[in-house]
Amino acid sequence: MANCIIAQSGGPTSVINSSVVGLLEANNKLGVFNNVYAGLNGIEGILNGNIINLSSFSQTEINNFRYTPSSGLGSCRYKMKKLEESTDEYDRLLEILKANDIKAFFYVGGNDSMDTIAKLSYYAEKTNIDIKFIGIPKTIDNDLMYTDHTPGFGSAAKFIATTVLETYLDSSVYINNGIFILETMGRDTGWLASAASLAKMNGKQVADFIYLPEVAFDVDKFLMDVKAKFEEQNQVYIVVSEGIRTAEGKFVAESNAQAHDKFGHAQLGGVGLFLKNLIISSGITKRVKSLELGVLQRCAMHCASNIDLEEAYEVGAEALKQASLGKCGYMIGIKRESNTPYTSSYFLVEANKIANNVKYFPTEWINEEGNNLTPEAVEYLEPLVSVVPTVVSTSKLPEFKVFNK
Amino acid sequence: MANCIIAQSGGPTSVINSSVVGLLEANNKLGVFNNVYAGLNGIEGILNGNIINLSSFSQTEINNFRYTPSSGLGSCRYKMKKLEESTDEYDRLLEILKANDIKAFFYVGGNDSMDTIAKLSYYAEKTNIDIKFIGIPKTIDNDLMYTDHTPGFGSAAKFIATTVLETYLDSSVYINNGIFILETMGRDTGWLASAASLAKMNGKQVADFIYLPEVAFDVDKFLMDVKAKFEEQNQVYIVVSEGIRTAEGKFVAESNAQAHDKFGHAQLGGVGLFLKNLIISSGITKRVKSLELGVLQRCAMHCASNIDLEEAYEVGAEALKQASLGKCGYMIGIKRESNTPYTSSYFLVEANKIANNVKYFPTEWINEEGNNLTPEAVEYLEPLVSVVPTVVSTSKLPEFKVFNK
Repeated sequence: MANCIIAQSGGPTSVINSSVVGLLEANNKLGVFNNVYAGLNGIEGILNGNIINLSSFSQTEINNFRYTPSSGLGSCRYKMKKLEESTDEYDRLLEILKANDIKAFFYVGGNDSMDTIAKLSYYAEKTNIDIKFIGIPKTIDNDLMYTDHTPGFGSAAKFIATTVLETYLDSSVYINNGIFILETMGRDTGWLASAASLAKMNGKQVADFIYLPEVAFDVDKFLMDVKAKFEEQNQVYIVVSEGIRTAEGKFVAESNAQAHDKFGHAQLGGVGLFLKNLIISSGITKRVKSLELGVLQRCAMHCASNIDLEEAYEVGAEALKQASLGKCGYMIGIKRESNTPYTSSYFLVEANKIANNVKYFPTEWINEEGNNLTPEAVEYLEPLVSVVPTVVSTSKLPEFKVFNK
Repeated sequence: MANCIIAQSGGPTSVINSSVVGLLEANNKLGVFNNVYAGLNGIEGILNGNIINLSSFSQTEINNFRYTPSSGLGSCRYKMKKLEESTDEYDRLLEILKANDIKAFFYVGGNDSMDTIAKLSYYAEKTNIDIKFIGIPKTIDNDLMYTDHTPGFGSAAKFIATTVLETYLDSSVYINNGIFILETMGRDTGWLASAASLAKMNGKQVADFIYLPEVAFDVDKFLMDVKAKFEEQNQVYIVVSEGIRTAEGKFVAESNAQAHDKFGHAQLGGVGLFLKNLIISSGITKRVKSLELGVLQRCAMHCASNIDLEEAYEVGAEALKQASLGKCGYMIGIKRESNTPYTSSYFLVEANKIANNVKYFPTEWINEEGNNLTPEAVEYLEPLVSVVPTVVSTSKLPEFKVFNK
């Protein structure tokens, strides 16, 4: 019996550690590997020899880790060179794995990580090295192809929907109320912003407008819509995705975007503030508030969805099983089996199909005016948002455990 | 048997509706009044005749209302004229109360509301009108004198401490991390920011620096402290209260009004954004994030403290009892009886002692350097932050109920 290794990459989620625990406990049960190692700080850390043995920690530590948000093994945004450019890194990594008698490598991440899995499995096969490479999905953005949804999304959706309800109430208390703008993350896709459609009072959606990047944003129509709604009800609640773009394809918030990350992704943020200033300048009202949820969306374990946590755990367990069956170069996908009651199953999808690909929010779930969603969106979202796990809600303050500190 | 009325005023909290339900259910039990009326939108609404009968709603509606954040009776920021200026409003209000056979008036609010209670009770007594006026405390700011703490504060403190822990983890995942700044509310006092001291990993406070308005903020020392800490641990976590001031008494964030975007709109951000820009300009690092918690602090029922909810309920019940005993012109205060186990009792304090008065965070609980707190702060805060009520954590999405919509 040899060993396996798991590592995390990219932006954190609330449930990413559950996938690690799912894999570890599946191995405890099935006895596939002697030890489950963890690479700290993803590929970057493994290349530095930063490896720990998860099998040596106590059950209490593992249980706390399971309900700790953010990447408790540390993360990286390390992009491996193209094989055509240089195989040095690949050779070094494989040497490190061989030196530790590692026969399976698991990477929890988004489409960049699946690119890494695809490249590594291709290179290992080409060089006749028997190590299995399996990807485990995670991203709050829900933008991976083929899988019905990604672990991390349900909890972010629950936090967003809950927060929309609460801030809607907070902005509704006076006789003369103002305009409230909530800005969500999501990059080029509107999945996170769409979760606002779940927030209802007396069966009616509380958000008046929801703007997603999948529809071109028209400033003039926006101001017309907001003005009319404000005159009608003396209050407007707006949800906007950070990544909305004009018809010319420019980010609406581009004036506020200052930098690009290492992969060339624009560092977005600030569209809420931009729209707030726009409304004030237009003279509709001066009573405008904007709130950027920021990183809370991806780490608010205190408002996590239990179904999301369980699925994150299961995709980890499934990855271990598939590696033990000899699979390589795949990511675990989630298939929705039914909505009522909600059930799902797992399947394999080639990692290179996920890499460098984006699943957009379906435009047929956006209304004709481009400022709201259709009931299909709610149908899709609702089952993913469940109760907070008891272990979280019954602690005064959480007992968190990470391995990268 | 006559009737009573209750209304809410000022900024919302997560637990303000619990006080209304506490009073309503105490009346159901004790049978003091025929009906418990509610004035919608505070004094302003009552003057418009906007009154409903709470006793006519179903138990389900009342239960949902109890766990609904924000002022579910609506609110106002209406300041009554001084009696010397005009008694017109007072006469009108008393007429409305008499017309509805109301013998007791309860106002849930902060120090402005207690000013209203003091004035109304004085004027009623002077004009021989037998109506009791009692104040019920509420404010997330915890800045009312005499009471050990205010309902609303514990839940805000729980949300802030939890969020500090979660965002600390979120900002700690890479090999090279940056600087994270969390901005809390609190106006002129540091109570809310102080709650960050509860956030601990392995028994150690995660916030490196906590800045309160009670100590003058020195920009140069701040940059020196942050630089040294960043060099030491390659990561800094900072908590700052919105109301910090320079030695000259100016708000630190005030100078931020100078920043403009490319359209010439003022980029009015808070002090967190200001400090972020300051750190970047100083050359310490460009990897700085700031997060303004904003109104989430006062409406995040999904992370409420059960002890806070219960005390909010009890101060409502106590107000009813004291009115039935003939008390007038008082606010209900909370006395801390013991910390382990935490117990408290209730007492009366003259409303005019609360009005126009502010309880500051004790400077003896701030360290000598002015950038962190002493263990006394944690001792004070810890008992107020308890588990989330089961009714909240066991719902997929909350079923909220308000009366002002």
